[in-house]
Amino acid sequence: MRSIRTSLMAVMAVAATSLPALADYLVREVGSFHVGGRTATVSGMPTRDVVFSPGAPPIKVDPNGEFAVEQMYVQYVKLAQPKAKVPILLWHGGGLSGVTWETKPDGKPGWQQFFLNSGYDVYVSDAVERGRASWARYPEIFKSEPMFRTKKEAWELFRIGPSYEVGGQRVAFEGQQFPIETFDQFAMQGVPRWVTNDAATQKAYDALVEKVCPCIVVVHSQGGSFGFNAALAAPDKIKALVAIEPSGAPDPAAVDAGKVKAVPHLIVWGDFRDKVAVWQRLPIAPTKYRDAIVAAGGKADVFDLPGMGIKGNTHMLMMDRNSDEVARLIHDWIVKQRLVN
Amino acid sequence: MRSIRTSLMAVMAVAATSLPALADYLVREVGSFHVGGRTATVSGMPTRDVVFSPGAPPIKVDPNGEFAVEQMYVQYVKLAQPKAKVPILLWHGGGLSGVTWETKPDGKPGWQQFFLNSGYDVYVSDAVERGRASWARYPEIFKSEPMFRTKKEAWELFRIGPSYEVGGQRVAFEGQQFPIETFDQFAMQGVPRWVTNDAATQKAYDALVEKVCPCIVVVHSQGGSFGFNAALAAPDKIKALVAIEPSGAPDPAAVDAGKVKAVPHLIVWGDFRDKVAVWQRLPIAPTKYRDAIVAAGGKADVFDLPGMGIKGNTHMLMMDRNSDEVARLIHDWIVKQRLVN
Repeated sequence: MRSIRTSLMAVMAVAATSLPALADYLVREVGSFHVGGRTATVSGMPTRDVVFSPGAPPIKVDPNGEFAVEQMYVQYVKLAQPKAKVPILLWHGGGLSGVTWETKPDGKPGWQQFFLNSGYDVYVSDAVERGRASWARYPEIFKSEPMFRTKKEAWELFRIGPSYEVGGQRVAFEGQQFPIETFDQFAMQGVPRWVTNDAATQKAYDALVEKVCPCIVVVHSQGGSFGFNAALAAPDKIKALVAIEPSGAPDPAAVDAGKVKAVPHLIVWGDFRDKVAVWQRLPIAPTKYRDAIVAAGGKADVFDLPGMGIKGNTHMLMMDRNSDEVARLIHDWIVKQRLVN
Repeated sequence: MRSIRTSLMAVMAVAATSLPALADYLVREVGSFHVGGRTATVSGMPTRDVVFSPGAPPIKVDPNGEFAVEQMYVQYVKLAQPKAKVPILLWHGGGLSGVTWETKPDGKPGWQQFFLNSGYDVYVSDAVERGRASWARYPEIFKSEPMFRTKKEAWELFRIGPSYEVGGQRVAFEGQQFPIETFDQFAMQGVPRWVTNDAATQKAYDALVEKVCPCIVVVHSQGGSFGFNAALAAPDKIKALVAIEPSGAPDPAAVDAGKVKAVPHLIVWGDFRDKVAVWQRLPIAPTKYRDAIVAAGGKADVFDLPGMGIKGNTHMLMMDRNSDEVARLIHDWIVKQRLVN
């Protein structure tokens, strides 16, 4: 009996030291591109006098001309010998960029690194208007003003804790998994967003799928709708769709969910949804859409993490302390879809 | 005689097939972080009604609160077995982001890939206000309006050709090396800039040097001043500074160039400078600063590419067709500074 226990412990020790996030891997190429977008022309605006350096004479600047707008940015790491049959694409949520998937605010490896170490070619993108995708003059090109998320909104909306007082105390949920001591580091990842670019964003994502898929797509939050719609538009190209806390979904009355019945879907939910009012409302549309896929004969699984005994996950679960544990559940689900050699 | 010729040809064939940009390499980690910055507080602004989805009722948005501002974004690829003794940091120019150094607009490997393949740990950053570094509300936090570069300005200022007519003809310089058929792809890399963030940007770069150096720094264009000043602030941390077409430099009357006499400097200039008026003015300050370093007993080399027989390079020489040839000259110069094992 003792020897069996010892063997089990030895096996567990090996498993612990061979976590994929800790191994080197052979890379074929690190690269990037922009995809989608169009040329916009601005005309009839007055020239402006701009002082480029303090004390220097002003220089006339003509704001009129042609601009590249509404493209998105995509960065990839291709392995020399990928194990996954198709690459994995990581699509971020609202007010954020592809940095979501990179090194976590606490300095530990994020999901980009996890999936590279697990043998996937990984594509991380910045949607239209975010990060390296760039943004355009408003209201002449983008049709509204940008929105800037406060630290308070991030803290409360992302279910790190019930209240954040400016200049004062930050109250966290008991047992939550976000590394709150590095919350200010996380806040640096925020980027402005617009509410009028959804169509352009969807178009760019569809162009990305056309360019690099077949693929697996992992979406987060606002990315949910873009991912669900991308799969409806190209069900032959998206071999699996994993939606992490999607904040929206197509209305089954307006689309044919049967189109994606051959695309396995997985929706993942974290903890504390009952403690933040908006999180009782946000899952309704994705759940309705999920039910429609199943009713149409498709596959749409749900991982309710607290229901599976995995407690304390916030909306930013790819940055939580147990992010590798959640990533491994997703990887195992992908393996079951026969997408990994 | 024949056998010697054959051996030489064999050696040359090996050299040609072992171009660093074509080989796989073992990676320890792909990661990123934000560095520098501060928390800014906005108060006293009215709430706004925002319609987040067409047709939905407006939601009240409170713009007041705390924001992370003036940080910069840094992404690194660390090799399992780097040959360079210290990492290389690639700092972009004005109106651009770290994408400058990644895959070229023509889809071929850029300098990030070149230096990885040559055995360096490579750090590519987005300066304050650019790309994944994010930007802040103006005029409340950033003190001026953003500037958007037109395609015409990029074409002419970057010395791709003498004239760009909106909706019409693009005239290129004869013999220039930029892949002009992919100019529209390049234009997607442009990001807005401000003229009032230089001090915050310098502060963030200095924080980056403090965090990750000793290192080699390669700067481009507007990055020139930030690199020269970073070396003056931390001459023990920057082991070599390569300035690609720097658009500015410290005034030797205002700084002590002797501080960097142990830091080897290299300035690289492309072609067609006599054909664009501003390019007869821009090199004056860097040249004066370079002369001051030499007068103080330091090392500051100059590669005047056309003078060395390398013709046709634009301001974006890391994207030109012969970018590997120029990168190799720089790599060889770094090797001479004894920074590569």
